[in-house]
Amino acid sequence: MGVMLQGMERGSTASASVRAVEGARARERADRLVTEEPMEIRVHGPAQEPAPLVVTIRTPGDDFALAVGFCITEGVIDSAADVATVAYCLPDDGVQQYNVVTIRLRRPVDLEAHHREFAANASCGLCGKATLEQVEIACDAVAPGPRVARSALVTLPERLRRAQSVFDATGGLHAAACFDPHGELTVLREDVGRHNAVDKVVGHAALQGRLPLADQLLLVSGRMSFEIVQKAAVAGMPVLCAVSAPSSLAVEAAERLGQTVVGFLRGDRFNVYTHPERIDLES
Amino acid sequence: MGVMLQGMERGSTASASVRAVEGARARERADRLVTEEPMEIRVHGPAQEPAPLVVTIRTPGDDFALAVGFCITEGVIDSAADVATVAYCLPDDGVQQYNVVTIRLRRPVDLEAHHREFAANASCGLCGKATLEQVEIACDAVAPGPRVARSALVTLPERLRRAQSVFDATGGLHAAACFDPHGELTVLREDVGRHNAVDKVVGHAALQGRLPLADQLLLVSGRMSFEIVQKAAVAGMPVLCAVSAPSSLAVEAAERLGQTVVGFLRGDRFNVYTHPERIDLES
Repeated sequence: MGVMLQGMERGSTASASVRAVEGARARERADRLVTEEPMEIRVHGPAQEPAPLVVTIRTPGDDFALAVGFCITEGVIDSAADVATVAYCLPDDGVQQYNVVTIRLRRPVDLEAHHREFAANASCGLCGKATLEQVEIACDAVAPGPRVARSALVTLPERLRRAQSVFDATGGLHAAACFDPHGELTVLREDVGRHNAVDKVVGHAALQGRLPLADQLLLVSGRMSFEIVQKAAVAGMPVLCAVSAPSSLAVEAAERLGQTVVGFLRGDRFNVYTHPERIDLES
Repeated sequence: MGVMLQGMERGSTASASVRAVEGARARERADRLVTEEPMEIRVHGPAQEPAPLVVTIRTPGDDFALAVGFCITEGVIDSAADVATVAYCLPDDGVQQYNVVTIRLRRPVDLEAHHREFAANASCGLCGKATLEQVEIACDAVAPGPRVARSALVTLPERLRRAQSVFDATGGLHAAACFDPHGELTVLREDVGRHNAVDKVVGHAALQGRLPLADQLLLVSGRMSFEIVQKAAVAGMPVLCAVSAPSSLAVEAAERLGQTVVGFLRGDRFNVYTHPERIDLES
């Protein structure tokens, strides 16, 4: 057999040779794997040196949207209007590095203060309640937003699945998508990390000047975590849907922030966990 | 409706009231959600003050195993023999905090060096190849280990599913389990974070003095990521199975570290991505 990955491809999938077993039969065949690679985000203001903000393991593709989306949903910047340029790093030896993205801001940024704030938040009174209180400070409650017909809601998973090209090829990653209140898909992004898929969606909207996403529904392919609720709140998203289950902290955060959480959205069934007033069951 | 989460329960599930919709019918009913809460791990040696190492969002349960497992798989300590005590934090006001776990070591620990090393690794030549080279430095290649019969391998997902109690209640989390080469389950842990589930398994074994897990098979309920391969390598695990797909970096890391990766293990079918010599297709 032997694995024959074609080096470090830049695409969102890579080739491999696998031994496929079914019952007592085995055969060698070609396969596609979802690409997983680290990416570092660096940030600087005018007259500042680029400083590392975070390393995330992501699927290549929409790297600039991921970098900008991460900075927005984590509170490093307020909007894409703060961003002067986004670029891959060009190091001294001239070899392009597609795994380091540098964001130059129009104003100075105090990453030390950001790290200090993170450490202070994390180390004192650490519990779900304290975490929720931080989120309330960091995020405004989302606007009332649209009402969504049940008949539109139940179409979302199938629309997502049909648009998921990389998943079709590899079976290996998470998707996050935005829909308008009538159920039309507006943007879909995929990644090995569910939070990265959401950051790509938010960053894409930010770079188009479309934040807040106050009339958009979010659908994630798996579970709804606290982290996704928090990121969606920063982007102003009012209705959050998941094919699978939400967590306790996700539901508590959405309740406080005024977001509707829909879980186990499958076939003609779903559960509404918070703020059901946005779901019109009659139509 | 209204969400009626019963405060911040310490268990791995929490109560909620949901509006369950099926077609045009809706009814209120009680539901169970998987608990998601932050936990901080603090570490100190003799005559050192406890210092924060990491905050992870996890499902409560086996917190001490999670803390010790994280320290081992991330290279902060070499084995549980370095650990003097593991305890929940008791702050000045005397109120027990179940979300802060402190590990006291028998020898001094240099967390600054650990953070510096992490930063240095992350900021220079960042790509999958550099990441893999770091892993090779940090991990020994795993031992040849057992051969596993195909007939035993295909029984693992059903054994896992039968033992997954929290998933049954909530549908909301990842599982990691160890099996012996005959397919007998030895330990199962669940968590909202797939990496946490693996750390709980490794920490449990470490606290029992059973590392390396050189004769154990690992099965994860979802996807096989690079992070899981790396953690399993530190624990010496030779055979890594996933119900879903592996990523490109997971396969490349396992190839280099000498681990067998099995993916899409479902029914009587599976794919072998690396080191097929440990799988006996004839029996």
